[in-house]
This record gives sequence, structure tokens and C-alpha cells, in this order.
Amino acid sequence: MRLKVLGIDPGSVVTGFGIVEQIQERYIDIVHGEIRLKRGTSFTSSLEKIYDELFSLVEREQPDAVAIEDIFYGKNIKSLIKQGHVRGVAILAGSKHHLPVFEYTPLEIKKAVVGYGHAEKIQVQNMIKVIMKLSELPPADASDAIAVAICHLNHQKKNHI
Amino acid sequence: MRLKVLGIDPGSVVTGFGIVEQIQERYIDIVHGEIRLKRGTSFTSSLEKIYDELFSLVEREQPDAVAIEDIFYGKNIKSLIKQGHVRGVAILAGSKHHLPVFEYTPLEIKKAVVGYGHAEKIQVQNMIKVIMKLSELPPADASDAIAVAICHLNHQKKNHI
Repeated sequence: MRLKVLGIDPGSVVTGFGIVEQIQERYIDIVHGEIRLKRGTSFTSSLEKIYDELFSLVEREQPDAVAIEDIFYGKNIKSLIKQGHVRGVAILAGSKHHLPVFEYTPLEIKKAVVGYGHAEKIQVQNMIKVIMKLSELPPADASDAIAVAICHLNHQKKNHI
Repeated sequence: MRLKVLGIDPGSVVTGFGIVEQIQERYIDIVHGEIRLKRGTSFTSSLEKIYDELFSLVEREQPDAVAIEDIFYGKNIKSLIKQGHVRGVAILAGSKHHLPVFEYTPLEIKKAVVGYGHAEKIQVQNMIKVIMKLSELPPADASDAIAVAICHLNHQKKNHI
């Protein structure tokens, strides 16, 4: 069994991404990172930048599916809506390559890697470092993105969004 | 003075669009319509459909700017976030053609065409019919989109988003 999943953690300021390939029982970190929006850049250009970077990433790495973190409703409404915009263009980047897109709640994602839903960010980072055999602690939002990919590899929901 | 503006009213179910060209003091209805999301279509395909239709429209009609309705915070949070996704891909469709994107609040838009901010949908439709010299009442969401375009032609904000 060989499957490559792009995980995305869309945020109003930082968007994390991580491509995880599963070969039999092994998880391989293909690439991970963060797209950071610069202050002073217009929101329109920021959306385009996120779309372009994710689009190129999919083109280059040819994953089989996209897994994206669902919105967590606890934040303030303005940043939730901003995050909605980012999620919209992130989903489109996968869809434009005919990939199925799956979503998982923050609770499901944390459970998949740390074992319980209310883990701290640093616990997720530590677990990702261990699971993926990384030499360094990955940045927080990239860790979350890798966690979404792993969550999909573990669960494999049948219905994409 | 000659200026062509694409107005967009992004919605979680229906997205209205309207291209208005101003030649001197005259407003001309170039095209208007609605993109309706079908039940049973995945959200991912819906986002791609909205993006593709707006992208082709901009390609075909070559407007000078995009004016988009800002989110109205009164609705329930789930549809606000869904609307955020739609707005994200709509903004991207303009941005991909290097167009500046401007946003106006529902209040500003209604004021621009009806004269006061708390007008009913039917009043907006009636005013759009009159202003644009249409033979029929345009559909509600297309009317709102035309109204955003007119609002931009009247105001011409200096700062795009």
C-alpha cells in the first residue's frame, strides 16, 4: 500500500502544509512548511499567494488526496471568516488537480496523533517529530498540517467534501 | 470616462454577478446572472464551478475592476464561513487577471442605489431595473451584484483589499 496525502492547516495568518507518503506501515515526510502572509500585503495578493504555492506543490508532488483541517468555531468571527477565504482557495488548489478533498475536525486530528483531542500545540509538534522521524521539531502550523495528513491516512473517510 | 466593473454578491447558495459599464453618465448592463449551487454537488466542485465561471467571465468581458459585497455579520456562523470560502475563490478569479478588488458593505451598496441602507431586496431589484433600463426585474442576487458594481462606480474607493 502506497498513498501520498497533502495535509493543509489553513489559517488567517499562517497556512501550514505537509505531504506525507505512506508505504506499507511507514510514514515518510516528503515536504512540509508554512505559508506566512506578510504585513502590508493586500488580502487579495495573499489569497493568490496561498493558492499558487499549494497549486505548485500539488503539481510537483502529485499527492493522491488532500486532507484539510475543519474550522474551529471558538475563535472570533472575523478571523473565522478570513480563514474561510483561505480554506476556499486551498480547496480549489486541490480540486484544480482533480484531487478529492477530505476534512477533519481539530479534535479528530489531535486524537489521531496524540491520542486525545485537547492536546497542546507543543505536544502535537513533539509527536509529529517522533512519528515522522524528523531531526528537528517542525514549526507549529506545519506540524498541524502533517497531523491532518496522518489523520486521513489512519481514518480514510469515504466521503470527500 | 469609460469604466467596466464586475460586481459580485457571493453567497453560500447563490452567487450573483453583474458587469456594468459606465460611459460618461450612462450605465450599461453588459451581462448579469446567478451561479446557483446544485444540491448533491460536493462543496469542492461548487467552489471550482464558481471560480471557473467568474474566471471565464472576466476573461471574456475584460472589466477594469472587481467590486464585491462584504460579509454581513447578522447570519449564522456556518453560512458566514461558507460564504467566506466562496468569497475567497471569487476574489481569486479577479486577482488571477490582475484586477484590483474592492469591497463594500451591504449598507454602502443599498445606499448607493436606493438611497438608504435598510432597503428590502425587492426595492433594490426595482431600482436596478430603472437605473439600468432593463425590460424585466433582474433576479435578487444578480441585482445585488449590479448594485455593488454601481456602488463602486459612484464611490471609487482608493484602496483595494
